[in-house]
Amino acid sequence: LHSRLPHVGTTIFSTMSALAQAHGAVNLGQGFPDFDCDPQLVDAVHEAMRRGHNQYPPMPGVPALRQAVAAKLQAMHGRSYDADREITITAGATQAIFTALLAIVHPGDDVIVLEPCYDSYGPNIELAGGRVVRVPLKAESYRPDFERIAAAITPRTRALIINTPHNPSATVWSAAEMQTLADLLAPTDVLLISDEVYEHMVFDGAAHQSVARFPGLAERSFIVSSFGKTYHVTGWKVGYVAAPAALSVEFRKVHQFNVFTVNTPAQHGLAAYMANPAPYLGLGDFYQRKRDLFRAGLEGTAFRLLPSEGSYFQCVDFSAYRERSGQRSDAAFCEWLTREVGVAAIPLSAFYAQGCEAPVIRFCFAKRDETLKQALDKLQSL
Amino acid sequence: LHSRLPHVGTTIFSTMSALAQAHGAVNLGQGFPDFDCDPQLVDAVHEAMRRGHNQYPPMPGVPALRQAVAAKLQAMHGRSYDADREITITAGATQAIFTALLAIVHPGDDVIVLEPCYDSYGPNIELAGGRVVRVPLKAESYRPDFERIAAAITPRTRALIINTPHNPSATVWSAAEMQTLADLLAPTDVLLISDEVYEHMVFDGAAHQSVARFPGLAERSFIVSSFGKTYHVTGWKVGYVAAPAALSVEFRKVHQFNVFTVNTPAQHGLAAYMANPAPYLGLGDFYQRKRDLFRAGLEGTAFRLLPSEGSYFQCVDFSAYRERSGQRSDAAFCEWLTREVGVAAIPLSAFYAQGCEAPVIRFCFAKRDETLKQALDKLQSL
Ligand SMILES: CSCCC(=O)C(=O)O
Ligand SMILES: CSCCC(=O)C(=O)O
Repeated sequence: LHSRLPHVGTTIFSTMSALAQAHGAVNLGQGFPDFDCDPQLVDAVHEAMRRGHNQYPPMPGVPALRQAVAAKLQAMHGRSYDADREITITAGATQAIFTALLAIVHPGDDVIVLEPCYDSYGPNIELAGGRVVRVPLKAESYRPDFERIAAAITPRTRALIINTPHNPSATVWSAAEMQTLADLLAPTDVLLISDEVYEHMVFDGAAHQSVARFPGLAERSFIVSSFGKTYHVTGWKVGYVAAPAALSVEFRKVHQFNVFTVNTPAQHGLAAYMANPAPYLGLGDFYQRKRDLFRAGLEGTAFRLLPSEGSYFQCVDFSAYRERSGQRSDAAFCEWLTREVGVAAIPLSAFYAQGCEAPVIRFCFAKRDETLKQALDKLQSL
Repeated sequence: LHSRLPHVGTTIFSTMSALAQAHGAVNLGQGFPDFDCDPQLVDAVHEAMRRGHNQYPPMPGVPALRQAVAAKLQAMHGRSYDADREITITAGATQAIFTALLAIVHPGDDVIVLEPCYDSYGPNIELAGGRVVRVPLKAESYRPDFERIAAAITPRTRALIINTPHNPSATVWSAAEMQTLADLLAPTDVLLISDEVYEHMVFDGAAHQSVARFPGLAERSFIVSSFGKTYHVTGWKVGYVAAPAALSVEFRKVHQFNVFTVNTPAQHGLAAYMANPAPYLGLGDFYQRKRDLFRAGLEGTAFRLLPSEGSYFQCVDFSAYRERSGQRSDAAFCEWLTREVGVAAIPLSAFYAQGCEAPVIRFCFAKRDETLKQALDKLQSL
């Protein structure tokens, strides 16, 4: 069999989770909480099932959930999306991004990604028949390099994928950066896929700069988000896409022939639960406390802390441990850390097509305080 | 925006369901039950959520559910699939079929479908970069025409999609037909996607002839099925693919970058529920009773009944009503039937790329007996 993805193996996230389990390591690798969601949310889904919401929902999603998303986007960013025509519920954010690409990329089109980036983007573009154009974020700071983005845009560029708050680097784009992007794209037809799954996890009083806030960007954008990240239910696999009607029409044409629709009871439960905005409004503070706890603990180690402005990730430079561990590469260091120290992390090279030289690994702090303390104990004894 | 699917609108199933709702018609169009699933299944999913099964499951699916599927395939068809390497849980059967195509079709490959067929197959093949080769089933009988299938196979043929029990025609392939296919494909490298979502709905003492039973077919096949169809939970969006390890490896490479995984609590609930095979073993009798009730009622009308050997569909020839309705085409007749008579059905032309001449429409009898009687009352007054 001639593979469509010859260079692809199992995602690093599955691999590291399996390794963590095999060695009884504290798993700060794959990005998911080790605590549970609000029992009220479970009750809401149970109630939906009991009421018989177990058959196909409307193809674009349960209307009440689409309306809740539209209301949230209006409240947070002051832009109105038509719940009927511009919001589509998806089987998670990954499916949303892939479907958007399938809907807009024609064979031979270029799609620009900013490296490091989530590992699905590249294969998604290739499967859609496009060519992946990789533009690096600035070294060390992981901020967008607009000169290099501008230089990469050609008449063949169909789309650009951005992601803020950023996985893995935990940077958050500023309003000025977003405006620079708007100015840069103004004379072009380039479409945007804006991966905003960590939208509610922004720290230190900053605000998430959704493309929804920027005239000139919103009109050309698929905004992608994830109920799983926001409500601590990564396994439910529910996300959404908000996009202008003309883009949503094309999105739905593909969506209906990919998953057709999304788990009905989860949609009803989330719709009922979203009536109260407090859970997502409080998410930044909730994770900022965890970030601070984790960073404070790492101060007692030789890891060099990179900034964590948003998301639930903390990157560190491990070069001080290269000698002790006998490991040079980030991937080898992560394996060693899992096996010998009992803490799993993700090597940043997993977010690059050709790996990277920087001695940086990513921890996920979406964990119970006990779990973080357990991991810190181990890391401090290093 | 230059569409990837310029010829595609909203699926006929959504369109007819919306029309049925708008006119308060009895909806025998879209294939889903109007009765609820077993409350024990709801309880099992609730229990899974309460136990905290709300985060990412392993990428290929919850092990217990994969094992339950393997045990079922062994018991029903005597073929053993390795639950670890050969079974993958999907977000429904449509996602499974699309993902299989993305995993095996290279740009320019041909994929053969047998018309009439489910409306996702064609767009799925096109999105995967392939060329759709449409071979008609035999006129009137809707049985496979092996001469025409053989004639369509060339060195460019990557795959063939088959579907038994068949949507929309309700035919069930015989063991002899399956063996003929095995012989026909023996000298080729053609892969098979076998859509078996109605596997448990076979009537009159016949047995479902899964490709799993046929050496020479099983080795080249992705078997696709649906928990939604089997357990009356079409809205949960859980299905599976069973395929030899070499095919499953390629399937999972794409799957992990499409949906990554599938709703965790639904998987745990289904795994617990499947410990008892009675519900799926009894499904043929359950639906045969409904078929018989529905067919008996239609005897009092001028619709000509086609055979219904399996699935939950009943096709009829409506030509006796052409004059009364003033409608010639099946699509116009279905609209008229919905609006004027109050019963929604699906026109068979929706299962063809270029429509069809045959005056045939499809009813779904996966409905409460009262619903079927209500529909029959209306149809009998025609
Ligand atoms: C799909 S598993 C990965 C979860 C995640 O977003 C991450 O760890 O980066
Ligand atoms: C995806 S909605 C269609 C359900 C179905 O399988 C059918 O009606 O044919």
